Order: sequence, then structure tokens, then C-alpha cells
Amino acid sequence: MSGKSALFIVAEGSEELELIAPVDILRRANINVTIADLTDSEHVKTKSNVLIKTDAKLSDVKCNKYDAIVIPGGPSYKTLAAASVVGEILKTHEQAGSVIAAICAAPFVLYKHDIAKGKNLTSYPSVKSDIEGAYNYKEDSTVVDGKLVTSRGPATAVEFGLRLVEVLLNKEEKDKVAKGILYPL
Amino acid sequence: MSGKSALFIVAEGSEELELIAPVDILRRANINVTIADLTDSEHVKTKSNVLIKTDAKLSDVKCNKYDAIVIPGGPSYKTLAAASVVGEILKTHEQAGSVIAAICAAPFVLYKHDIAKGKNLTSYPSVKSDIEGAYNYKEDSTVVDGKLVTSRGPATAVEFGLRLVEVLLNKEEKDKVAKGILYPL
Repeated sequence: MSGKSALFIVAEGSEELELIAPVDILRRANINVTIADLTDSEHVKTKSNVLIKTDAKLSDVKCNKYDAIVIPGGPSYKTLAAASVVGEILKTHEQAGSVIAAICAAPFVLYKHDIAKGKNLTSYPSVKSDIEGAYNYKEDSTVVDGKLVTSRGPATAVEFGLRLVEVLLNKEEKDKVAKGILYPL
Repeated sequence: MSGKSALFIVAEGSEELELIAPVDILRRANINVTIADLTDSEHVKTKSNVLIKTDAKLSDVKCNKYDAIVIPGGPSYKTLAAASVVGEILKTHEQAGSVIAAICAAPFVLYKHDIAKGKNLTSYPSVKSDIEGAYNYKEDSTVVDGKLVTSRGPATAVEFGLRLVEVLLNKEEKDKVAKGILYPL
């Protein structure tokens, strides 16, 4: 293993491609990935009705320390934005210098929990107007600002995963995984 | 629903991104998707150790008629290439004029079951030398030849799903899904 760890926080409606692409890519880079559902469910039911088994109960791991907290998008973003436990996990990890990552509508979760305000960030266009006042909003497909990694939507989920590997490990590891998955062709 | 249907045949080791990206994209296009594991398992354990719940037992659905049979890649390709039931499903559907689709190493499954020989096709580079003699092998990221849709690897799985929507439905539906997932940005 790489010695690095990442916690993916999901809820009913999480976008499966935005979950699975970075999980796959981080595990290919030997990063220890844990998927946990807000309601401690054994499975998360994703946006397009795929049932994906979680790795842990969020209540069991919420006090653990991870090198990255990753939040996929999908309609779950509203639930996650309203959940105080998600805010606590994000704040603790931001203060500890961990990587904070969100894709699609999930940057709204960061906004609601008062995370990384003022930094460079992007999101799915639908939540831009809600959050752009609090950040230096960008239109790039994936934006890295120090330990903050954000991306725009399902079609950018592979790039999002690769940039996370680069931030958590290094460019060589990112390039190795990219080559294996044929990115870019 | 679109009235169209697709059966995804998986086995232990199937590449999760090559499964989830087209499943998500086809379901966004209202195509009725069924995921079935070769061993009738309730979950398929993917290459990077994600447990994804299957929708049906392959033994229960193997005689059903689908508009598309889709085979994701990953180390499962050897098991699927050796399974006579997979060959029977593929042959029946090829003869009926259904779409046959395979990504990454899965075109080797088509090769072993004697499907679509002579047609334009691509694959993950590692199986090229095994199969190129039997097809008109291409290096494009995704290749469509009539009802045969093949693609190269995890990073081309989104494009693969979108081309499948175009072949099963039409360009308008493909464009609609592409716009929703921000492809291309």
C-alpha cells in the first residue's frame, strides 16, 4: 500500500460514476479507500439505481483520520450538505491539512459546511450561482488549489481521480495509473 | 422507458468503471439495464474490490432477449471467454441482430466465442495480438461497426456508453445524456 487513505462519504442518490471512477483509480494507486454511507447503510443506492456495498459504517469511522475526504455528486448533495456529521468530518480534516475533494454538485456540501472558502474551485454548473460568491469560481474541468480538489461532473470523474492521486502521492504514480487505464489515449 | 434493454454480463474481476460508466449512461437514456454475474452471485466483486449488487441471476435471464449484450473488461475476461453460456447468449443475440458490445480485454471474449469475426474492432492493447488476426483491428478509442461496439479501456468507458446509446437509440438521446454528464466539457 501507499500508506495513504481516503474516505468517500456517500448517501442515497450519489452519482455512481463519480464514486466508482475515483475509487477505482485511487485503489489502482494503492491508496486505502473506505466508502461509507451517511445512514450507516450496508449498500448505497446510487442515482442510476446501482447498489454498491459500503466498506464501513460512517458512525464507526467518523473519528478516524484520513489523508483525503472525497464527496461524489448526485442528488445526495442536499442530504450531505444538511448533515452535521459531514461538516464535522470535513472541518477536522481541513484543520489537519488533509485533502478535501468534491465533484459535480458536491462542492455545495463544502460551501454549506464552510470549508475552503475563498479558494479556487469548480462544480457542476447547476450549483454555480449558489456557491460562486464564496469562492474564486473557475470553469476548468478539475481545479486543484493546494489540498482542495474539485471537478465538474460524471465525464470529469476519471480526471478528478487522477488529480487526487497526484495530490496524495505524486505525478509518477498518477502517470502510472493513467497509462494503465489508457488516459488520455 | 426507451423500450430498449441491455444485459451486462460480469464475473469476479470485472472492471468497475467499465461496468458502471455504461450502466449509468444507459440508464440516463432510459434503457432497461440488467447486470448479471456468471455465477449467479448476488454481488460481483470487481477488479478494485467493489461489491456491486447484481440485478438478476444469469441462469434466470439467459434465455431472455435483449437489444444489447455488453461485456465489461477486467481480469474476468478469461472466465467469460471460457464460459459456454456466455457464448450461447452472444451467438443468439448476434443472430437476432442485437447490439454486441465489449470494452478493454472483453473483445477477447467475443473472439473466443466466434462473434463478429472480420468486423472492425478495438480492444485493450494487451489482447491485441491474440485477436487482431480475426478482425479488422483498429486503434480508435471506440469503434462502431454496425451492431458491434468495442472500446479500449477504463478511460474510454464514458465514450463507450455514449456510443451505445447512439446505436441503441439515436444521436439526439446520446447528445442529451452527454450534455447532462458534461461530455465533452
